[in-house]
Parts: sequence; C-alpha cells; structure tokens
Amino acid sequence: MEIDFAKGDGLVPVIVQDASTHEILMMAYMNQEAWEQTLKTKKACFWSRSRKKLWLKGETSGHFQEVKEILLDCDGDTLLLKIDPKGKGTCHTGYRSCFHQRHEKGEWKVFGERMFDPKEVYGT
Amino acid sequence: MEIDFAKGDGLVPVIVQDASTHEILMMAYMNQEAWEQTLKTKKACFWSRSRKKLWLKGETSGHFQEVKEILLDCDGDTLLLKIDPKGKGTCHTGYRSCFHQRHEKGEWKVFGERMFDPKEVYGT
Repeated sequence: MEIDFAKGDGLVPVIVQDASTHEILMMAYMNQEAWEQTLKTKKACFWSRSRKKLWLKGETSGHFQEVKEILLDCDGDTLLLKIDPKGKGTCHTGYRSCFHQRHEKGEWKVFGERMFDPKEVYGT
Repeated sequence: MEIDFAKGDGLVPVIVQDASTHEILMMAYMNQEAWEQTLKTKKACFWSRSRKKLWLKGETSGHFQEVKEILLDCDGDTLLLKIDPKGKGTCHTGYRSCFHQRHEKGEWKVFGERMFDPKEVYGT
C-alpha cells in the first residue's frame, strides 16, 4: 500500500487528531513534499491550497504539531495524524479546534472558548 | 456560516468519528443532497465519487451510522460527524475503522482485527 496522491491531483486530505484527548483539531492537505517533510521532522507539514506553498503548522504561531502516529485508510487516499499540539490552540481564530461550530436546530452555533487572541499570535 | 460546497466542486469532505470511543472510522464526501438526506433521516448519507450516486452508509451491510452531532470547521469546507455505528465494523474490508494501517519504520502495517467477513456481508 502506498499513499494515493494521484487521486486528488497530487494532494491527500489529512485529518489531525489530538493523540491524548482524541479531539479532531483540523483537516488539511499534503502533497508528496509535505509528507516527506513531516516524516523527516516529525512536525506536521501541509500544503496550503490558498497560498500554494508548503505550510509548516506553527511556523508563525509557534503552535507546532508533534507527530505521534500516522494512519492510512483502506484505499490509501486519506491520512490520519495523531499529534501532540504545542501552544494554546490549533485554529487560526483562536479556538482549540477548527471544528468549533455545532449544528443545532438548523443553525451553526459556535461553542467552546477562545484559547488565544489571533491578533497577538499572528499580528493581523 | 454555511457549508461551502462550491470550494470542492459541490462536495465537502466528511470525517466520521465514533461518538462514544472517539475513534475515527472513515472519511467520505457529501453534496447538498446527501447533506439534506442526512439531516432528514439522522443516518449518514454520502455521495459516492466512484459510483456517482447517493450512498446511504449501511444500505447493503446494515451498518448504518446514527448521527449524534454535526460540527463544521472554521472556514466551512469540512464536516465532522459524530455517530453511533450500527453493526460490527465500518470498513468494507471488515475492519472496525477504515484507518487500520499504521506507518512503522517506513512501511504501512495493518493492525487490529477483522470484525466481519466482507463476503458474508456484501456477498462479493
């Protein structure tokens, strides 16, 4: 079994799960180069589809993701990274997880609390 | 916030997590119609990219996924379904999770045990 990068035009989706709490923190994409960087450094590195460049998670915020375990699904087209998250939160909005909106009575409601102020961390 | 179906040409990736054990079971895709079916029936319904049709998970195997909670990520392009899995296993290969291959010393090694015989469940 190999990672099937071809199916998604060179990219595979990567689910990022907290190795300790099992909370899903984010989803991102890797190309071959991001995959190799991640293996080499043991820090999660993705391919930013918007910026079209390698994206070492934490390079700006310091919130690196230390990779503990890597799983591949049955047809080889999706990765699951179990990581130890450094810093206060994963999401660029300041929440611990990117998944901080819950579907309730037909609406998306934000839950949880902000772990950091994005302005302080990203300066924007 | 609305689900951003446009970004992925009408499809959004959907992470499926066991609501009780927090194990990641699979990843699949939804279009608008699959999303509406899921909301209506409270059973996970996806869009099969290979068969190009709606795919009610469990329609053949009986392994339905009862939806307990639905989360959306910060930019609205990925869903997280927390479900109660019916039946013995999620993966069409018979494993509990589709993520049953672990990266160890440069190789993918299958772990866990088969929960059912695919031939008995799918007849193929």
